Amino acid sequence: MNNNISAKKDYKDIVVAIDAMGGDKAPKITVKGACKASLNHSFKIILVGDEKIIKEYLEKYKHNADRIKIVHASDQIKMGDHPKDVLRNPNTSIGIAAKIVGDGEADALISAGNTGAVILATTKNIDRIVGVRKTALATIYPTHNSQGRDDIFSLILDVGANVHNTAHEIIHFAFMGNAYVQAIKGIKSPTIGLLNIGSEEYKGGEVLSRAYKILKSIPNINFVGNIEGNDLMKGLVDIVVTEGITGNIAIKTVEGMAGSMKKVGKMAFKHNMLWKMGMVMLSGGIKKLQDVTDFETYGGAPVFGFEKTVIKCHGRSTEKSINNALVLAAKSVHEDMSGEISRAIANYEHRSGLEEMGREVNY
Amino acid sequence: MNNNISAKKDYKDIVVAIDAMGGDKAPKITVKGACKASLNHSFKIILVGDEKIIKEYLEKYKHNADRIKIVHASDQIKMGDHPKDVLRNPNTSIGIAAKIVGDGEADALISAGNTGAVILATTKNIDRIVGVRKTALATIYPTHNSQGRDDIFSLILDVGANVHNTAHEIIHFAFMGNAYVQAIKGIKSPTIGLLNIGSEEYKGGEVLSRAYKILKSIPNINFVGNIEGNDLMKGLVDIVVTEGITGNIAIKTVEGMAGSMKKVGKMAFKHNMLWKMGMVMLSGGIKKLQDVTDFETYGGAPVFGFEKTVIKCHGRSTEKSINNALVLAAKSVHEDMSGEISRAIANYEHRSGLEEMGREVNY
Repeated sequence: MNNNISAKKDYKDIVVAIDAMGGDKAPKITVKGACKASLNHSFKIILVGDEKIIKEYLEKYKHNADRIKIVHASDQIKMGDHPKDVLRNPNTSIGIAAKIVGDGEADALISAGNTGAVILATTKNIDRIVGVRKTALATIYPTHNSQGRDDIFSLILDVGANVHNTAHEIIHFAFMGNAYVQAIKGIKSPTIGLLNIGSEEYKGGEVLSRAYKILKSIPNINFVGNIEGNDLMKGLVDIVVTEGITGNIAIKTVEGMAGSMKKVGKMAFKHNMLWKMGMVMLSGGIKKLQDVTDFETYGGAPVFGFEKTVIKCHGRSTEKSINNALVLAAKSVHEDMSGEISRAIANYEHRSGLEEMGREVNY
Repeated sequence: MNNNISAKKDYKDIVVAIDAMGGDKAPKITVKGACKASLNHSFKIILVGDEKIIKEYLEKYKHNADRIKIVHASDQIKMGDHPKDVLRNPNTSIGIAAKIVGDGEADALISAGNTGAVILATTKNIDRIVGVRKTALATIYPTHNSQGRDDIFSLILDVGANVHNTAHEIIHFAFMGNAYVQAIKGIKSPTIGLLNIGSEEYKGGEVLSRAYKILKSIPNINFVGNIEGNDLMKGLVDIVVTEGITGNIAIKTVEGMAGSMKKVGKMAFKHNMLWKMGMVMLSGGIKKLQDVTDFETYGGAPVFGFEKTVIKCHGRSTEKSINNALVLAAKSVHEDMSGEISRAIANYEHRSGLEEMGREVNY
C-alpha cells in the first residue's frame, strides 16, 4: 500500500478506477460514461469488470482509447448480495478496483454498486488518513440555495457510516466537508452548520454543545452555528455536520418526503380541483426532481477518511452521472482534497493534544 | 394538588381549562372555538384570561352559557416572552389555567401559546405520573396513510422535550402513544415503530437496539420494528417512538420540506413550463397543506407524562382547531388516557424492577 499522501496533480497524470459492473444499468452506463469523459478530459480511466462485455460496449461508443484501460474481474457484487462477499471473493470488480487504488495504480475509486461492499472494499484496500477517528459517508442534496451559490446542492455528513459520534469526530467531519467543497466548488470559505434541535449554543446535549464550542473557535472553519431540521432544505450552509444517526434519519426523511408529498396532497385535498391539477402536472416534475437532482448532476457522494478519493454513485446512475462522478473524482485528486483533509486533521489533533495536556492553544 | 388519577368520566362531568389568551389570534379564536364546542358537546369549558375582553367576544358568538365559565387572569405570556416569566408572574393566563387543572378544578389543559411557558406552567402545577422518567412532547403529522386508517395522521414522540433518552424512556413513550391512539382514534392495538437507521434489530447503537428488544417482548405493545426516515411519511405505523433529538430533527425536516419543496422545484426546473405551471397551481395547495393538515384537523399535540391531559395547540390555531382540541382533550379524559398511561408504566416498571433483581419476567 502507498502511505504517501499525494500533492496536487496534473489532470493528465491522474488515474480514476471505476467499478464497471456496479449500478443498476452497469456495465452499459459505466462504460458509456467513461467513454464520454475520455473525449473531454485528459485524466485516465481504468474500467474494472468483465473484459469481454466491457470491450463490446467500448466498440459501440466513441471514446479516446489512450485514456481508457480495462482490468478484468470475473465476478461482481450485486445490490442484493451480502456486502461481506467482497471480503471472501478476491475476484469482484469493486474489490479489484479498490485494490488498484490502494496499490497506488490509481488515484480515485468510483462505484455505483452495493454501498456496504464499496465501504468494505475501501476499508480493506485503501489506507485511512492518519489521525482520522471515524470515516464518514456524505450525501449531496438539493436545497433552495438561500446563499445564492452556483449550484443548489449542500453536503451533509455523516449520514450513516456511524451511529453516535464524539465532538472531535464531528470536527473531523467539518474538515472533510470543508476540503471537499473548497476543492469541488471552489468556494474559499464554505459555510458550515451543526444539525441540532435549536439555535442556541447550549442545545443538543454534551456532544453537540462541545462540538459547537470547538467549531466556533477554529478560525479556518466558517462555522455559522446550529441549524435545525426545517433549515436543511433552505441551503443556509454549504456543509451540514451531524452525528451519523441524526444525519441518516434527516436525509432519509428528505428523500421520503419528496416521494410522498404527492400522495399526502392527493388525500388531503381530494376535492380541490386546482390542487389536483397541480399535482398531476407536478407528478412528472417530482419524478424528475427525484431522478435528476438526487444524483445525476453531482455524480456521486464522497466516502471520507481515506487517503484516496472514493465516490459512491447512486445505484440508478446514468451515463451523465457517471461522467460527472469521474470528473468530480479527478478534480478532487487535482485539488489534493485528501491531502487537505489530512493536514487539517493533523493540525487539529496536534493542537487538541496540546490542549489536553493543559496548554492553551488557538485552533 | 390532586394525586388521584381519575377513571373514565361522563362527558357532562368533564371540565377543560383553556388559556384563552394563548395563540396568534387569541382571545378571539379561543373564545370562538369554545363557543362552538359548547353548542355541540356537554363538557364544561373554563376560559382563563382577560375577563372583560372574553366577555365582549362571548356576547358576539352564539354559545351555551351553562357550559362556559370565565376565570380572570390579568397578564399573559406572549410568543416572544421568556418562558420563565410564567414562573415569576402569578397572574398569567397559562399559569392560572395550569393551576386550575393541578388543583383538580379542571381535568385537562389547552393552550395555543408559548410552548416553553406551557411546559413550565404544566411542570409547576400538574403532578407527573408516578414512575414516568421523562415527559415527552408529541407531534401529529400527516402521512399517506398506508395502513388505511380513518385519518392520515401519525403520532411521533419525543420531538424535543428531551435530547437523549434511555431505552426505558423510549418504552414509556410507547405506552404514552399507545394510550393516546387507543383513546382518541379508538384503534385497539396501534402499531408502533422505532425511528432508526436501518430495519435490523441490532441497528442504531446501544439505546435503540435495547429499546427494540424490550418493545418486541411486550405483548400489549404492537411493535412492528424499526422504521427509517424515508418511511415516516408513509404512515406505516400509528406511533413513532424516538429519542428527542432524532424526533425533533426528523419532524422539523418534514416541516421544512413541505415549505421549500416549491422553491427547490422552481430552481431546478426553471425552464420546464409544465413543472412551472404545476408549481403555480400547487402553491395555493402547499400553503393549504401547511396551514390545514399541520394542526387544524387534529387540534393540538399532547404533552405526555402528567396526571392530567395537556394539549399544546399550534400558535396559528383557528376556531376550528381550538374546537377540535377541546373535543380531543375531553375525549382523552373520558377515555382515561392518563390512567392508562399510569397503569401501563407502573406495570412495566414493576416488571423491569423484578428483572433487574435477577428474576425472569414476562412483560
